[in-house]
Amino acid sequence: MSLSAQILKIAKAAKKVSYQMALVSTSEKNRALLLMANALEAQQSYLIKENAKDLSVASKANYSKALIDRLTLNPKRISAMADGLRETAKLKDPVGQLLETIKRPNGLLIKKIRVPLGVVGIIYESRPNVTADCAALCLKSGNAAILKGGREAIFSNMAIFKVLKSALKKTKIPLDALQLIESTDRAAVHELLKLDTHLDVIVPRGGEDLIRFVAENSSIPVIKHFQGICHVYVHAKADLEMAYEIVMNAKLQKPGVCNAMETLLVDRTVAKKFLPSMIADLQRASCEIRGDAVTRTIVKGLKQATEKDWRTEYLDLILSVRVVENLSQAIEHINTYGSHHSDTIVTKDKSRAQKFLDAIDSACVYVNASTRFTDGFEFGFGAEVGISTDKLHVRGPMALDGLTSYKYEIYGNGQIRQ
Amino acid sequence: MSLSAQILKIAKAAKKVSYQMALVSTSEKNRALLLMANALEAQQSYLIKENAKDLSVASKANYSKALIDRLTLNPKRISAMADGLRETAKLKDPVGQLLETIKRPNGLLIKKIRVPLGVVGIIYESRPNVTADCAALCLKSGNAAILKGGREAIFSNMAIFKVLKSALKKTKIPLDALQLIESTDRAAVHELLKLDTHLDVIVPRGGEDLIRFVAENSSIPVIKHFQGICHVYVHAKADLEMAYEIVMNAKLQKPGVCNAMETLLVDRTVAKKFLPSMIADLQRASCEIRGDAVTRTIVKGLKQATEKDWRTEYLDLILSVRVVENLSQAIEHINTYGSHHSDTIVTKDKSRAQKFLDAIDSACVYVNASTRFTDGFEFGFGAEVGISTDKLHVRGPMALDGLTSYKYEIYGNGQIRQ
Repeated sequence: MSLSAQILKIAKAAKKVSYQMALVSTSEKNRALLLMANALEAQQSYLIKENAKDLSVASKANYSKALIDRLTLNPKRISAMADGLRETAKLKDPVGQLLETIKRPNGLLIKKIRVPLGVVGIIYESRPNVTADCAALCLKSGNAAILKGGREAIFSNMAIFKVLKSALKKTKIPLDALQLIESTDRAAVHELLKLDTHLDVIVPRGGEDLIRFVAENSSIPVIKHFQGICHVYVHAKADLEMAYEIVMNAKLQKPGVCNAMETLLVDRTVAKKFLPSMIADLQRASCEIRGDAVTRTIVKGLKQATEKDWRTEYLDLILSVRVVENLSQAIEHINTYGSHHSDTIVTKDKSRAQKFLDAIDSACVYVNASTRFTDGFEFGFGAEVGISTDKLHVRGPMALDGLTSYKYEIYGNGQIRQ
Repeated sequence: MSLSAQILKIAKAAKKVSYQMALVSTSEKNRALLLMANALEAQQSYLIKENAKDLSVASKANYSKALIDRLTLNPKRISAMADGLRETAKLKDPVGQLLETIKRPNGLLIKKIRVPLGVVGIIYESRPNVTADCAALCLKSGNAAILKGGREAIFSNMAIFKVLKSALKKTKIPLDALQLIESTDRAAVHELLKLDTHLDVIVPRGGEDLIRFVAENSSIPVIKHFQGICHVYVHAKADLEMAYEIVMNAKLQKPGVCNAMETLLVDRTVAKKFLPSMIADLQRASCEIRGDAVTRTIVKGLKQATEKDWRTEYLDLILSVRVVENLSQAIEHINTYGSHHSDTIVTKDKSRAQKFLDAIDSACVYVNASTRFTDGFEFGFGAEVGISTDKLHVRGPMALDGLTSYKYEIYGNGQIRQ
């Protein structure tokens, strides 16, 4: 069978059973999730054996240590993956939720009801646990899932998929509701992106290149989980000790994630007082600082931050620093150069704080807190598919609700339109 | 300036002022809408004079009578357009609405707030009133709008746009928040669809070709207002008199619109009783009937409905009719061939009705009512951008709320992540 025929077959099968998936009871979905969790733990040695094949390819290919670490499965990580499924079983089932009731003068009763999206395609890279996480979230939200992992984790993904499917066989959930594309050819993704009558949404999770490729080539609606160029703005009326703690946390606690800070903005009136020790302490923690002209007059010997720095998601121990004239300039900087992900102001002035909240066009806008809280668990939503940087459908943490749509159920007694 | 530079300039200007638009007060937006309404009425003769240029081109090009009618502006229609703006001024401002409040154990207070999408691109055909309607809806929802009408209405659209802008000059609303693309070259649309850093959403309104072109060429998120292949299913336990009225209404009251019925499904047990007089009366109303094999044994002389008919939006006095074995077959037919727009069951059996509501994957699923109610005004939402056949972001009538996103405003007192 040609690649294109294979992908079409997978998509058709998923679409067909998606109508059944929408009707599966909460208890049956939860039972499936628990069986899947148990199966992952029971098949631990098989999973580690298959994972070793990926690791062997990776080490021969001289992949980075960080990438190899992300790829690695061990008993602890397999248990964590299983526990993730058990946690998803505990989450409230979004399907069937009554969102709104409207009574019309003509007697029509309109109920807005939460329903699954249908068929969800998820394209991701490196970490094999995403296969189990996304399968679980799609299942719980009543969707059929088509998963396409990265080439580097193909043996691990196939093994996890096989174990999950073996558990599904013991349930009433249609097996075709969970699909994995085994081809490692990028052409497979290209084929998938054309199937807009079979897939309802595509979620790319990975590097900028992957996301751009998907956004530019898909005729299926896409929810992008793009970069996080997050800012901390230290306002003139900031509690500078609080600002210090927030900056340290937002930059250093986990620099490689999308909600870490990439640019620090400091109000001119506090820059001389705040920056010297702040920068010294960041440098002591191995963080490279790139400053604008004013910053470089306050702290000597810094590399110059260029226009490109303001637009860069380092995901690393690098921070760009700019001294701004006032709140308006901070807002303009963030809206111009940021990625509309997560930004925070540190200030004791409530009205300035509210102006920042209103004017910053980002998914998550904070006052006096670290940007690192942009996360499904931290918001109380549970596991997430990712952090959406889109404005349509779902913005910020994309959890179970983000995998649903709604429909209107309308009850009449013979109404016709005049 | 090249076409591509012109389009980029428009998009950049719209993006730039979109941040201001998000902060404009409700009273200022309403004042602008009323000034725009008055200006349209005051400039009635200018609008009619410009419209005559489009009509002259149309009549030379031998456009259909229906198209020429849709293009025509007259005093009554101009007043209706102005009244539409006045109605939009009366609608509740969606911006700033508090959607959810979350308190976290660490003391973070998370508010989910409705915000504008940013820059909305609307690409539409023929009726010039869409220029005013869409400008008004985007303005009221705090968005910057980029409008691109059809070539056939270019003089009318430019005239309406000019009048609206002249009214905007008397307000605090930034003029660049309303943009019209004057080029009638399809290349202009193509250029626009690439500008995903400047536009937040594209809404195509028009024929299937236009919508496909946009969906396939846009890297900006698209909300499609696609076809309506709507069904009425007359169940075994239907009140047949009610079914008769609903069928007549859904097919005949306005056959050229997306929520009109295109296919009638009738349960085998009532087909012989129901179909002969139903079909005769539809035929008397000049409606052509195309039947499946069983229908054609019950009523002789009908044209045969083919597989293609089940997938066709006639938008005309044509109806395809199929006799189905039972509810399950009706559901399968509708989910397979329909366009997931609006479908209705006529039945006195409440549990069968609920099964239909649950299993049909459409934006609007009705029991005992005409499909013709799928409409923003009929739902109580007010004016609409269209009826979304997408499942992401907005499904069914797309009114003011559909032109908004949300953001999380998070209040802390120094929280950092552990």
